[in-house]
Amino acid sequence: MYDCIIIGSGMAGMTSALYLLRANKKVLVIEQESIGGQIASSPRVENYPGFKSISGVELTSNLYDQVEELGAEYEFEEVLGLESNGDIKIVKTDSNSYEARAVIIATGCKYRRLNLDREDEFIGNGISFCVACDGAFYNDKDVAVIGGGNSALTIALDLINYTKSVTIIQDLPNLTGEACNVEKILNNPKVNVHYNSKVLNYIIDKNDEFKGLLINEAGKEKEILVDGIFVSIGTIANTKPFTNITKDASNYLLANDLCETNEAGIFAAGDCKSKKVRQLTTATSDGSIAAISCLNYLKKFED
Amino acid sequence: MYDCIIIGSGMAGMTSALYLLRANKKVLVIEQESIGGQIASSPRVENYPGFKSISGVELTSNLYDQVEELGAEYEFEEVLGLESNGDIKIVKTDSNSYEARAVIIATGCKYRRLNLDREDEFIGNGISFCVACDGAFYNDKDVAVIGGGNSALTIALDLINYTKSVTIIQDLPNLTGEACNVEKILNNPKVNVHYNSKVLNYIIDKNDEFKGLLINEAGKEKEILVDGIFVSIGTIANTKPFTNITKDASNYLLANDLCETNEAGIFAAGDCKSKKVRQLTTATSDGSIAAISCLNYLKKFED
Repeated sequence: MYDCIIIGSGMAGMTSALYLLRANKKVLVIEQESIGGQIASSPRVENYPGFKSISGVELTSNLYDQVEELGAEYEFEEVLGLESNGDIKIVKTDSNSYEARAVIIATGCKYRRLNLDREDEFIGNGISFCVACDGAFYNDKDVAVIGGGNSALTIALDLINYTKSVTIIQDLPNLTGEACNVEKILNNPKVNVHYNSKVLNYIIDKNDEFKGLLINEAGKEKEILVDGIFVSIGTIANTKPFTNITKDASNYLLANDLCETNEAGIFAAGDCKSKKVRQLTTATSDGSIAAISCLNYLKKFED
Repeated sequence: MYDCIIIGSGMAGMTSALYLLRANKKVLVIEQESIGGQIASSPRVENYPGFKSISGVELTSNLYDQVEELGAEYEFEEVLGLESNGDIKIVKTDSNSYEARAVIIATGCKYRRLNLDREDEFIGNGISFCVACDGAFYNDKDVAVIGGGNSALTIALDLINYTKSVTIIQDLPNLTGEACNVEKILNNPKVNVHYNSKVLNYIIDKNDEFKGLLINEAGKEKEILVDGIFVSIGTIANTKPFTNITKDASNYLLANDLCETNEAGIFAAGDCKSKKVRQLTTATSDGSIAAISCLNYLKKFED
């Protein structure tokens, strides 16, 4: 029996682990994919206080080392369900079942897709979400970025380092990222922006190779011939297994300012939680608050 | 006219500066004492995600460099008042008056004192608050720590590196810090704990030298002869100049989850804000949220 099971090993989950382990609690972290969560795929982080510039992988590795030294246990399994049996929480995965006094859900959110024809076939072969993973495949090639928010602009700025050109497809009449990023984008001769534009379909040739996009730009259809695209149009909460936890209209978990959900002993932290601002700083804040609330909750089981 | 004046240069204030400068805003940071706020006096930080172990000075210097490179302006003055004149905020200091569209208050909190006879005379000469500043003065000497919470225990653990002995004076029947720290303290032969004990007075000899404490331990008066003491009994909000901002019963500033106070365009971030958990992570979270809220507020002044 664990004191606490943390579901997810992003910045929020690992910060919870850090606090709970420093308080000598027995902690299991369950991760479905790989350590670090979504930020681990970011090539360059410049707004996390303390590091002028660091890759997401390096930042999350630092935190992993910090937690690992304190004795966290890790399991790499997919969580399918979370149940309560009296004061015991049962976490069911694709291969096991684990028991704990408390659970912190820190499962984050994932990339939203365009959901167009044959999309699954071309993910990793023309359709990407992560520059750190796939950017180098497009050395000296032409790429498009779908989206015009800050994440999209960061991706575009990073792609400039690799590619011959970057075409931004934005459905609004302007770019909505940070002013400093917008300025850099608009001043870069490699970048071309299509405003008021929607992606209608992928262009696939007779040999089943990805060749670009068919878009509707302010009412006119246009072909955008590129070697690959990076999709950056938002995220979806990873909260499907948590059927007993109250959620908002977008399926993010509802929790109060102590990260307490509607079920005693179950806490929510980080990007999977319903909140107004999603940043690394707010994820680590949630992580520490959830852990401190969890420690208070665990007191009822002590002598 | 600045876009935003940030009052205070601790982790919260500097994180706000980081976000606002990345958005190309004109920012002035006003600091009364020295860069970094309260954490700068902490010799060892081990619960900030990303650094296994770092001194407070090093952490805040990192953040200062990160912000400085983006072009923040700094003034070292004491803020005496904050007024609104229509859409203009006026910050009055001991030597100047500055105008901005918005203000972020990130003034933190300060050490609570015992308020005993002749205390002022002996601060820095027997009475300390900060191991990084004064710990080395007590090499191979006997010291006492007043308090039994986590900050007090951290101070005691750090003092062990310097001193011959550490006596903890705790007014409760137990120590209330993190379990791992409590365990280390109770297992260390250099440490002696007095529970249910209150400090009645300082012992000062005929030559006006600090010699220790008179305490009441569970009803009995006792002399604790030590060369110096470190006081760690909590903090006080640095919010006196902000008479128009609504505060809680302990004088911390009331602000919502977007860090908005009762006055439009004035935001509160970090330890000076009324909240349940005060950690480095919650300070940087507030700092980024206040900056993002401020950026939204500033939009009304743009074309």
